Order: sequence, then structure tokens, then C-alpha cells
Amino acid sequence: MTDRLTMPLGEAIFSQRAIRRYKPDPISDQDLQTILLAAGRAPSATNQQPWRFLVVRNPELKRRLQEAYTEGWWHRRRAAGIMGPQDIAPDDKVLQSALRFTEEYALAPALVLVCSVHTHVTNEILTACQNMLLAARALGIGGTLTGIGGPAEPLTHQIFGIPDDVEVRFCVPLGYPRGHFGPAQRKPLSDIVFEDGWGKSPAWA
Amino acid sequence: MTDRLTMPLGEAIFSQRAIRRYKPDPISDQDLQTILLAAGRAPSATNQQPWRFLVVRNPELKRRLQEAYTEGWWHRRRAAGIMGPQDIAPDDKVLQSALRFTEEYALAPALVLVCSVHTHVTNEILTACQNMLLAARALGIGGTLTGIGGPAEPLTHQIFGIPDDVEVRFCVPLGYPRGHFGPAQRKPLSDIVFEDGWGKSPAWA
Repeated sequence: MTDRLTMPLGEAIFSQRAIRRYKPDPISDQDLQTILLAAGRAPSATNQQPWRFLVVRNPELKRRLQEAYTEGWWHRRRAAGIMGPQDIAPDDKVLQSALRFTEEYALAPALVLVCSVHTHVTNEILTACQNMLLAARALGIGGTLTGIGGPAEPLTHQIFGIPDDVEVRFCVPLGYPRGHFGPAQRKPLSDIVFEDGWGKSPAWA
Repeated sequence: MTDRLTMPLGEAIFSQRAIRRYKPDPISDQDLQTILLAAGRAPSATNQQPWRFLVVRNPELKRRLQEAYTEGWWHRRRAAGIMGPQDIAPDDKVLQSALRFTEEYALAPALVLVCSVHTHVTNEILTACQNMLLAARALGIGGTLTGIGGPAEPLTHQIFGIPDDVEVRFCVPLGYPRGHFGPAQRKPLSDIVFEDGWGKSPAWA
């Protein structure tokens, strides 16, 4: 399986960025297999591997998942005082892009729901999500981590028959990018690295 | 920076495993710089980059961090009914290895505390942790994700002067491995991948 992920690690990490606009080309079974094998290699506490991946390529199911995602997205926005599109500043690129994405979500050829079977350590599944995005990147496939929260969670349980004791936390849309991979904007190292005490930036950062 | 991380992505992902026993050789400034630059490239919701990394190589500070980590580790064990070493089965390899690690923690040449400045999305920092572990792997450096919880959190705040509104969640010990990298034991894909509905394993998984 490693022979399909030959991109140097540095190239994958430093050119990864959120991809939200996709070509219609499908994601093959083989690519999904490689991406999810990589995801499943991630570390977890006492190796419990709490992640489960539910792949959605069926157009009608993708449409229903988009509706659920959009309800969850607006739920989070309303909690932050944003009641509708009119409350998002035209120059707020991050939110405008996220808003447009709620309308284009199901255009991703594959949507991968990421679930946790151990609800007390639920966000551990993020190490697997990061492996998934890096493996996709190495295959020329873009994606982004989207949250399934608020009303979206019971809706996804209902649509896909997910048991009550399983938590759905994220969905990763995947597709070949329209547009380009990274680099993405990030803070300089001196803003995020300290040594021996809080606020003490080392010379090498 | 990418020229230092030339290992193929597949090799890094499929040979990553938790490394808990280290050679005494130090981790250089240059390697820490590469590892933490890679960590900082990880994705986060609305690109908030909530992670901060506090590197500890000073022996006295490492010793105090080991004490804090060990208190937190036993706190989690007691919550699970394990009151002392006598309650851990001799053939429970995972817990025996974790127990031994509480005694050898400060032997790691570098301990990297991973903090979150946005406490409501605190575990988002796990994408950065996974980049960190993969970049370390590509440099021949091993590590593992350890939890800083319960009494360990206020102790680390005190030792390192971390502000109250910053959350300390993980610490990643780093060092050159005694012993070998992966592969690690993982479930087969058919156990963790479904398509279109819960429990429906696709033929390709």
C-alpha cells in the first residue's frame, strides 16, 4: 500500500490546504482503500482505534447529508450571533467560503463521515482524519475537515442507521481540486513555539 | 524545510508507532524547528491554529514534568479502578508499557507540551500532533502522544507559567528510538469502513 503514497512527507504536509471546490471526477475504490488504510494507522490512546469511516458516494445520500451538514453549520453560526448570510461580512473570506460550501457540499464525489465508538475520547479520531487528508493529498485528492454537530448529529444517525452509542463528529468531503493545493497561511513559528516557560520564544523558532 | 522531510508519506504513515524508549542523544534545534513547522501546518477550524508548543529539554524541568504527568496518569488509572501496580495484569502489555513509561518519561531528550488557546475546540490540536509525530518519524525520531489531564494540568500551568485561559492537553516525548519503528497492530479495514449505511462493509475494504 505504501507504494501508492510516494510523495515526500514534507511536500504533503507543506502543500496541504482545505479544498472545497471539486471536479466531478469520481474517487475510485482503490483510492478510498489507500486513504482509509492510511487513516487507520493513526495513533490512539491504548491503541483503541475508536474511528469508524462511513463512505457516502450515492447522490441521494450525499444530498441528505448536505442538508444535515448545513443545519449543523447554521446552528453553530447562530450560536455566534450570525443569523443569516446578511450577517457575514463580504470581505470575510473564511466564512464566505464556508457559506458557499454549505451549498456545494454534495458536489464532492465522496463524503466520508468520521465516527467514534468511544464517546469519552471522541476527538482522538482527529489523528486519523489528518492521516486521511495527507494520504488524499499524496494522491492528488483534496478535502477538508468539516464538523458534524448540533442538529446534524441526530440527522446523520437517522440517515445512515448509526447506533446511538456511536458519535458522529466530522465529515471529510473528498474530490479532485478545482484550483490549487497550498501553501496555506500560517502563523510564524515564533508565535507558536516556546521553550522552558510560557512566552519564551527560543532563538531557533 | 520540505527538503528535510523526504521520506515517502506512505513509509512515514505505515511505519509510525508509539516509541517510549529512547537513546540519550539530544534532539537538535534544527530538528525541533522542522518538526514544529510541520506541526503548525495542520488544519484547524476557520484556520484558528489554536496550538502552542512548549519545548522542555532542561533536565530539572523535565523531571518536574514527569512528576506531573505521573500524577495525571495514576489519576486516570484510579478512575478505572486500578489503584496501584498490583492491579495491572503482568500480561497486559499496553498498560505495563505505559506504567514503565511513567518512570522513564524524563529520559526522553525532549518533551513537547501541546497547549490550546481556544479551550472550546481544544482537541483540534490533535491534527498538529499527528503532523509532529510524522515529521519526527521522517527524521528517525520517535515519540508518542501522552495525555496531560486531571492533576497534571494545574501542575504544568504552575511549573511553566502557563496562563489560566490556556489548556494543556498533551505532551509528546521525542527521542531517537531504542528498538524499532512499526508496523503497529491495527484492525483490518473491513472492521472500520462502511459505505452508504452503518455496518455495510464495501467489497473494497
